[in-house]
Amino acid sequence: MVHRHDLSVGTTGGGGDSGNGPEPCPAFRPELRNATAGEVLAEYLHRQATEFLRSLRLHDESAGSAESAAVAAEAVRLMRRSARRISAVLQVYRPLTDGAWADQLSGELVWLSGVLGRERAYETRLHRLLAALHRLSSVPADPVPSAEPPLASAGPPGRRGPSSAGGGLGAGAARAGALLERQLTLARTRAHSAALQALGSSRFHAVADAVAVLASEAPPAAETASRPAAGVLLPLAELAHRRAAEAVDALPLTRARQSYNGEALAHTLAAGGEHDAAWNQVRLLVRLRRYAHEVVGHDDPALAAAGRALDRHRDASEAASAAAAAARTPRIAPATAYALGVLHADQRHEVEAARFSFGRLWRPAVVPPQDAVAAVPSGAEGGR
Amino acid sequence: MVHRHDLSVGTTGGGGDSGNGPEPCPAFRPELRNATAGEVLAEYLHRQATEFLRSLRLHDESAGSAESAAVAAEAVRLMRRSARRISAVLQVYRPLTDGAWADQLSGELVWLSGVLGRERAYETRLHRLLAALHRLSSVPADPVPSAEPPLASAGPPGRRGPSSAGGGLGAGAARAGALLERQLTLARTRAHSAALQALGSSRFHAVADAVAVLASEAPPAAETASRPAAGVLLPLAELAHRRAAEAVDALPLTRARQSYNGEALAHTLAAGGEHDAAWNQVRLLVRLRRYAHEVVGHDDPALAAAGRALDRHRDASEAASAAAAAARTPRIAPATAYALGVLHADQRHEVEAARFSFGRLWRPAVVPPQDAVAAVPSGAEGGR
Repeated sequence: MVHRHDLSVGTTGGGGDSGNGPEPCPAFRPELRNATAGEVLAEYLHRQATEFLRSLRLHDESAGSAESAAVAAEAVRLMRRSARRISAVLQVYRPLTDGAWADQLSGELVWLSGVLGRERAYETRLHRLLAALHRLSSVPADPVPSAEPPLASAGPPGRRGPSSAGGGLGAGAARAGALLERQLTLARTRAHSAALQALGSSRFHAVADAVAVLASEAPPAAETASRPAAGVLLPLAELAHRRAAEAVDALPLTRARQSYNGEALAHTLAAGGEHDAAWNQVRLLVRLRRYAHEVVGHDDPALAAAGRALDRHRDASEAASAAAAAARTPRIAPATAYALGVLHADQRHEVEAARFSFGRLWRPAVVPPQDAVAAVPSGAEGGR
Repeated sequence: MVHRHDLSVGTTGGGGDSGNGPEPCPAFRPELRNATAGEVLAEYLHRQATEFLRSLRLHDESAGSAESAAVAAEAVRLMRRSARRISAVLQVYRPLTDGAWADQLSGELVWLSGVLGRERAYETRLHRLLAALHRLSSVPADPVPSAEPPLASAGPPGRRGPSSAGGGLGAGAARAGALLERQLTLARTRAHSAALQALGSSRFHAVADAVAVLASEAPPAAETASRPAAGVLLPLAELAHRRAAEAVDALPLTRARQSYNGEALAHTLAAGGEHDAAWNQVRLLVRLRRYAHEVVGHDDPALAAAGRALDRHRDASEAASAAAAAARTPRIAPATAYALGVLHADQRHEVEAARFSFGRLWRPAVVPPQDAVAAVPSGAEGGR
């Protein structure tokens, strides 16, 4: 049985208090020194499972009524939040539990957060695209007077004054926005029904039951669960970090780092998201690593920021795809297609910008886990 | 009369030999120490005027025949090169000559290089746009396998695989290219006839005659022309620098410097070249400053590079305008308009990239003229 009280004290801050004071071992929460690996894992799963069930109740109470639609949506978001964490932690710390059981529950939670996430994804995408269209079609400020200095060589013609370069966008932007709204709202509605259907399915009830058990009981324990927490958990957390780090190293970060060499956007426009899949995989692995470290009380702000950059990457990449897809709609006006082309390029630039900021945020994130590694051999003693 | 021989020795390198050896005054060519301001100016104008007349002869010999079209084009380019320099120098060093005469000839040379430059400008623009279309519509490499890690949350849908984000461009790119080629080739042909017409006009012959005089005689001299070169020329060269520097300081360089904050391109796409006029003005002032410093033997590679960045800025800005203008052609296919939209955004990104590299190149360029300033009070002695 878990010393729930002891543990919850130090963890309510999500491990945010690690590193306070002259802590000899920054790589591990002090109050977990004497706990077993199984106790720490069970405590984390208990907390997430409780959150999940609370959100589920909130959803059931608010669903159906138009007034509380926002509450229901928030409840779904919180359910996904817990589901992602439970799923991730069951995978990373699989050796502490019954592997078959962990894989099964983890897989079901992936299915669930996927089904529940679609509606919000379409909503976010539409908002992102409409905001970009608004920004792109905004009227430029008064142009800088182009009175040329006395000996200005007249230079080649064709500059039709400051506002002309964005010309035509205003006309097509409105129609492009309407087209995107129609397409993405339809997709969103379908996703909403799919989510409700899933929440009513026996498949979901089986998942909810399994989570309910985690809220009250420790997961089926393997032998390693009874060993001291630090020696077992830190190497597994470090493994999760190494998987993410290796995936990052395989990315064309260097190009993204070059900022305005012009080549990056050109490439992303040409290849049209050639590397998006690899970047999305990194997003998932970095998130997995973050959840894994939550268990041992690591809170890494730089890594969280890097994760947000990867989320922006995903959003922009999918928004760009949506713009390109909308442009393939039959019988649209040229002005609409032109605006969608500019919009696509704008979102691909956001993709490149997200890669660039991730490239700058990721390096610092590497340090803490290396402390953790150093701490492992000596049983979590003497990190840094 | 100018000591042409004495001077031409040290200047054939365009002043590139300034700063050789333990030169006490890097701000001024040694052999000009004992020359008067008028002599130095006349020598420079003589050299440029001679170049102009040689290029004009080359053009007259090669014009008309299809075989020698390239030679004629090169001759025109060289004529413009000299015309720009004479015009610039007459303005910067106006106090040394008859002001009314200088303004009149300088203005005519601006007219001439403007008329002669159009054909080449359209040709460059077309090549730039076709190259960009080719780059943007190039087929992406094999996508990175998107096999997701075990607990990959399925995530929102809509990613239609790597190649889809660039989808549709291939189709429209060819038609967009054909459209641009038709429009810009027509404009180029018109510019060609206009240039030939100008070269046959009495207005041109008057300019050519005035330049011929500069090739053999010193310009009408003001009193200051007889004073020592350094004391008169360096302050005027410095003034030209200050004009450029002030115009640069007025630019939103900081934003251009932030590279991938995403905001820069978004702004340039939205404002659609709001600041292009100001940047073009800077381009002209920086070029003016460069020519002015050629007279006193300054050769500033960093400044030349900054100037090239400003040329790229102008080219990209006008290419973006041409893409936007082509998209306003009636009855074009949506795929064509979409490709032109992507192309427009791509060229606006090149504009932003050019601003960014200028921002990095400009600062170093400030240093040499400051040496020059230091050198002025003591009559060009003891710079640095």
